[in-house]
Amino acid sequence: MRAALIQEDRLTVRQDYPLPTPHGEEALIRVRLAGVCATDIELLRGYKGGFRGVLGHEFVGEVVRAPADPGWEGRRVVGEINVGCGVCALCRRGLAKHCRQRTSLGIIGRDGVFADYTLLPLANLHPVPDNVTDAAAVFTEPLAAAFEILEQVTIGPEQRVIILGDGRLGLLSAFVLARTGCDLTVVGRHPNKLALLAGAGVHTRLATPATLRELAAAPADIVVEATGAKEGFFDALSLLRPLGVLVLKSTFADRLDGFDLSRLVVDEVTILGSRCGPFAPALAALAQGRIDPRPLIHAEYGLDDAAEALACAGEKGVLKVLIRP
Amino acid sequence: MRAALIQEDRLTVRQDYPLPTPHGEEALIRVRLAGVCATDIELLRGYKGGFRGVLGHEFVGEVVRAPADPGWEGRRVVGEINVGCGVCALCRRGLAKHCRQRTSLGIIGRDGVFADYTLLPLANLHPVPDNVTDAAAVFTEPLAAAFEILEQVTIGPEQRVIILGDGRLGLLSAFVLARTGCDLTVVGRHPNKLALLAGAGVHTRLATPATLRELAAAPADIVVEATGAKEGFFDALSLLRPLGVLVLKSTFADRLDGFDLSRLVVDEVTILGSRCGPFAPALAALAQGRIDPRPLIHAEYGLDDAAEALACAGEKGVLKVLIRP
Repeated sequence: MRAALIQEDRLTVRQDYPLPTPHGEEALIRVRLAGVCATDIELLRGYKGGFRGVLGHEFVGEVVRAPADPGWEGRRVVGEINVGCGVCALCRRGLAKHCRQRTSLGIIGRDGVFADYTLLPLANLHPVPDNVTDAAAVFTEPLAAAFEILEQVTIGPEQRVIILGDGRLGLLSAFVLARTGCDLTVVGRHPNKLALLAGAGVHTRLATPATLRELAAAPADIVVEATGAKEGFFDALSLLRPLGVLVLKSTFADRLDGFDLSRLVVDEVTILGSRCGPFAPALAALAQGRIDPRPLIHAEYGLDDAAEALACAGEKGVLKVLIRP
Repeated sequence: MRAALIQEDRLTVRQDYPLPTPHGEEALIRVRLAGVCATDIELLRGYKGGFRGVLGHEFVGEVVRAPADPGWEGRRVVGEINVGCGVCALCRRGLAKHCRQRTSLGIIGRDGVFADYTLLPLANLHPVPDNVTDAAAVFTEPLAAAFEILEQVTIGPEQRVIILGDGRLGLLSAFVLARTGCDLTVVGRHPNKLALLAGAGVHTRLATPATLRELAAAPADIVVEATGAKEGFFDALSLLRPLGVLVLKSTFADRLDGFDLSRLVVDEVTILGSRCGPFAPALAALAQGRIDPRPLIHAEYGLDDAAEALACAGEKGVLKVLIRP
């Protein structure tokens, strides 16, 4: 089969990669459509220090073989990306995504989805409702990451929330948080991206120094940092009131310098790291048409052009790039 | 009156400092006993960039004049250190300690307690029960800061907790958290300080690299960082499990470099800044004899020797130093 692999910091498409064989509870899945995530670009840049294998973790596919339960065969599915050891204390508490021995689809020790076929345990799969198109379903994983915010912090109409960043995760988070009725402002650098939030009941502001100063004068109860850049952390803190909650969504290879920890103590700020989230509310929002992420699609590439797809996704101003095997 | 002031990064005792006059709801308090806090030492080092005035915020005293309510005169009191503007949104929510216009006793814009007399609003004062000695009552403020942890995070017998640091705040936090029944380990660098926890139902470990590695292999649900040094932050994170809570108690002038923010996101760690706390449970614990902080007292100095008191408190291995005007 064809597969796009990280090899020596480059993405290379091989035509003769071995078709994987499902073991135990695993299913063999034909990839129908995959999405490029910022994490893929960071992995190419060296984040996590050396993933080698098939890249990609956002997908919608079709189960072609499920030896443990053939009833799954033929079903259209999306899949949670973390596979725990199943026996450690975290796995037993249902927290496989934090298992220290976990593999993660296309990220840690497990081939991903920029390929004709991929493998995942049946327990990771969610059937896609018929009325959700592939182009919408491929957003389930990043949309679930946006829903994770609501698992971690209570957000309602009485709160002022700022999302910093108008990238893929910033916009999806805006769609999700807007529905809580909170007073939501999205601050970004791209008028064309912010325009996608028209009608979503969200304030949008261009991230100029003057705007940041103005917003800092009336700081928010909750700030979501989704810029994908380390500078965003300091901007986010400057927009947060004492006793406020800073939700961190960005992962990147860079490290932060000059961080004033005492500010966190004096203002009794809470910082919440926030990663993968629950698929069920994401799929439900897509099925009910309450969130339509398809306007975020910028381009679609064939699998043979996966390297170009990643280069495109890494360009300034580009939102979601899809890869269709 | 006599007063010890920060002047040009040195502590100078003046004999002829003007006696302060209580305005409005303020009371004039004769300082009976004061305590030296790590923050005092950091302020001398330049933390907060330039407090000028009478240093000191931990005290027990006696109200000598209270024009707004003479019923307070003659009462022995301790006092909360933050004075809000009274009209902003935070003050109206009872969060004067986070008021942006606040003064803080001996820290921001308000003379402190290393003096014969000091001023505080009556609303900041708490009467000291008769059976609490001055030597115990002077610990109310730092003990309240330890109780703040329980205001922010639920801790009970099912949780493994590590306190990093065996200084003043680390030990007081240990006394407070031990009473929750949690599985508590205090990691410190000073056998003589750790020995003060004998009988408190607390595990103690010397902070060797081998010990830190061993503890990191079975990371804790909650880690309290109370080392007062920036290196403690990285150690604390290494001892914390995914989805764990890191409570930051240290304030210092140094800034942190090389911080891997993505670790917080991937492990979905919560960081809680934690500062001043509630006086009522601290005074109750002292009055009921459930916590006796007096073994922490290292030395007592007269007010004229305040500079020597601070030098002593800054030495390695020294716990609480008191100043008696």
